[in-house]
Amino acid sequence: MEPSLPEIEEARARLAGVARVTPVYRSETLSQLVGRELHLKAENLQRTGSFKIRGAYNRISQLSKRERAAGVVAASAGNHGQAVAWAAREVGARARIFMPQDAPMAKVEATRSYGAEIELTGPALEEALDAARAHVAETGATFVHPFEDPLVIAGQGTIGLEIAEQVDEAETVVIPVGGGGLASGVALALRAVRPGLRIVGVRAAGTLPGGSGFTIADGIAVKQPGELTSAILERVLDDVVAVTDEEISEAMVLVLERTKLVVEGAAAVGVAAMLAGRIDGASPALAILSGGNIDATLLISVMRHGLSIAGRYLVVRTRVGDRPGQLARLLTLLGEARVNVVEVNHRRESADVPVGETGVELTLLTRDRAHCDEILAQLERWGYPAREL
Amino acid sequence: MEPSLPEIEEARARLAGVARVTPVYRSETLSQLVGRELHLKAENLQRTGSFKIRGAYNRISQLSKRERAAGVVAASAGNHGQAVAWAAREVGARARIFMPQDAPMAKVEATRSYGAEIELTGPALEEALDAARAHVAETGATFVHPFEDPLVIAGQGTIGLEIAEQVDEAETVVIPVGGGGLASGVALALRAVRPGLRIVGVRAAGTLPGGSGFTIADGIAVKQPGELTSAILERVLDDVVAVTDEEISEAMVLVLERTKLVVEGAAAVGVAAMLAGRIDGASPALAILSGGNIDATLLISVMRHGLSIAGRYLVVRTRVGDRPGQLARLLTLLGEARVNVVEVNHRRESADVPVGETGVELTLLTRDRAHCDEILAQLERWGYPAREL
Repeated sequence: MEPSLPEIEEARARLAGVARVTPVYRSETLSQLVGRELHLKAENLQRTGSFKIRGAYNRISQLSKRERAAGVVAASAGNHGQAVAWAAREVGARARIFMPQDAPMAKVEATRSYGAEIELTGPALEEALDAARAHVAETGATFVHPFEDPLVIAGQGTIGLEIAEQVDEAETVVIPVGGGGLASGVALALRAVRPGLRIVGVRAAGTLPGGSGFTIADGIAVKQPGELTSAILERVLDDVVAVTDEEISEAMVLVLERTKLVVEGAAAVGVAAMLAGRIDGASPALAILSGGNIDATLLISVMRHGLSIAGRYLVVRTRVGDRPGQLARLLTLLGEARVNVVEVNHRRESADVPVGETGVELTLLTRDRAHCDEILAQLERWGYPAREL
Repeated sequence: MEPSLPEIEEARARLAGVARVTPVYRSETLSQLVGRELHLKAENLQRTGSFKIRGAYNRISQLSKRERAAGVVAASAGNHGQAVAWAAREVGARARIFMPQDAPMAKVEATRSYGAEIELTGPALEEALDAARAHVAETGATFVHPFEDPLVIAGQGTIGLEIAEQVDEAETVVIPVGGGGLASGVALALRAVRPGLRIVGVRAAGTLPGGSGFTIADGIAVKQPGELTSAILERVLDDVVAVTDEEISEAMVLVLERTKLVVEGAAAVGVAAMLAGRIDGASPALAILSGGNIDATLLISVMRHGLSIAGRYLVVRTRVGDRPGQLARLLTLLGEARVNVVEVNHRRESADVPVGETGVELTLLTRDRAHCDEILAQLERWGYPAREL
């Protein structure tokens, strides 16, 4: 059942002019940071914002005329739903996408904008899946699985063929692993055309046994790969490593700042694993940025978090005298020291502040951890002992 | 003194293998929003994060051996400084970049990482310029002007040649205008190879006479184009329009969400002008995303602002009874209505809140303006009359 190289090549022919051949960038600053040459396959710039249309289109374009008329169905809160909606429109089939009711509004709207009918179900993905299967049983529509399907895997595998042509140097390729469709397709293709490569899968630690069950990398928030994909991955991956949400956030901010690319959590796991030193060797490597679909409001939280970890924000609590001009004095000192103040919270009453003083919370822009420590010491010298929050 | 087509073609030959041929993307959702086919030239993916290396490299690679040995100098708080540093390293020349002392740390670090010596001067760019000129007079190094230089203009013009080959359909091309180097180069190239095109420049309203003097589009925060570039622009542009910082913020968020590309303020002015309906016609258009160098902390503010304008955040102030469980009750109601709460500020004392009640400030995630109004009405019905902040 696993796709062969000719089947991946057929998928590529079908996708010509449909999916974008996404660019590969070598990032100088990220290469410096990870201590090896690092190339990025920018699949976040794919149509619909993720690699998923490759598999979905390869599957849906193979439907018979009758099957197309009966329509396609998917259950997804994210990229797969958008991809099925988009691919169905491309071939003129109707699509109905079942989504958990709390799916981010941006994803619901995007999916609808590709012409799909949306059905919101209960909050769990399982409920969306049940509803989708019931609909399939009723109507004879075709259910498009996000990864347990040879045509879907072959479609994702076209990324491997592109990588082999675009980058000569890479000796290690790092691929996000959720359901395993992307990793098995890409690894099968690369094993066939570039047998010497080292191929490593990266999972989100939160979804592993013993993990929190949660991850910001929602695109790979699957407890384990499918049966088909597991069997393939077992054989074709050299290694599988995991990264934490903290590591993912930091990687997202770095990729955004250094390469000007917006990546979702799942897409940043490869860079996160490199930064954490979890990918052996120092030879040139390539990471697949699998998608860029992240809600802007979530992106803001992730960025704030990533910047705090990197010491680029300092949030402190201190006290000033409860007399006119006291807060101004502190802010003037900070201004003279060229410290950039982002936010000031001035709270007159608080259990831990003596009468006659006022609690102040400051959010400051900083360069790095050392700069944070320097500012804390300076505040102390000015007579404002501060506690970091 | 203005560069001819053969000079722009020579620049292109020099830049082959040095600068990236950046991709052009057609964004489906942005096209829908602006009501015409919209292509984006992603020059934010250029090396160093902006188009500036094209001009800087074309200039610096033409220095004689002796001139290279004496080094190059630039005064810049931003992209030009990074570009000169990068280009100098490429040709093996020393670079000294004079920067205002408040230049964003990320830009200072990036410039330094390309091997340049950095000198921080007083806070105004003029002081950096004076220091740079003094250094040139002293050492015989070569001053690289950001736009008043035919070789620099020819370098930026290579973008025009690429556009002409990459996009057949575009009938209107929209270009950011600050010092005018980019706009004059691109327009000269396009006038030569695609004479029928409509070419429109976009400026930041804040920098125009009568404006606030400030703009978030710092890359084009120049009071007016130079002498050379003005003379060219006068002749080659069909029109010049302006956009406000509000419009720029909204465009930045849209580009980021829909195309997965990080753009700085200056790079978003073209899309902003389209969205504001300031570019005549409905024919296919192309906007140049000139760069992506924006500090992550500034990007966060811009995104928050852009999302508020778009009705994707709602900040309200209301009151709850000052008894245990009252805030919890309000939050439960919001949760049941599936309203996403981002932030809660609970303030017991405030002049406008009667004794026995507590002021509460809520930041809520919303879909659009209509959704905001719906929530305000719902709060009223629940007995929490709320004031939008």
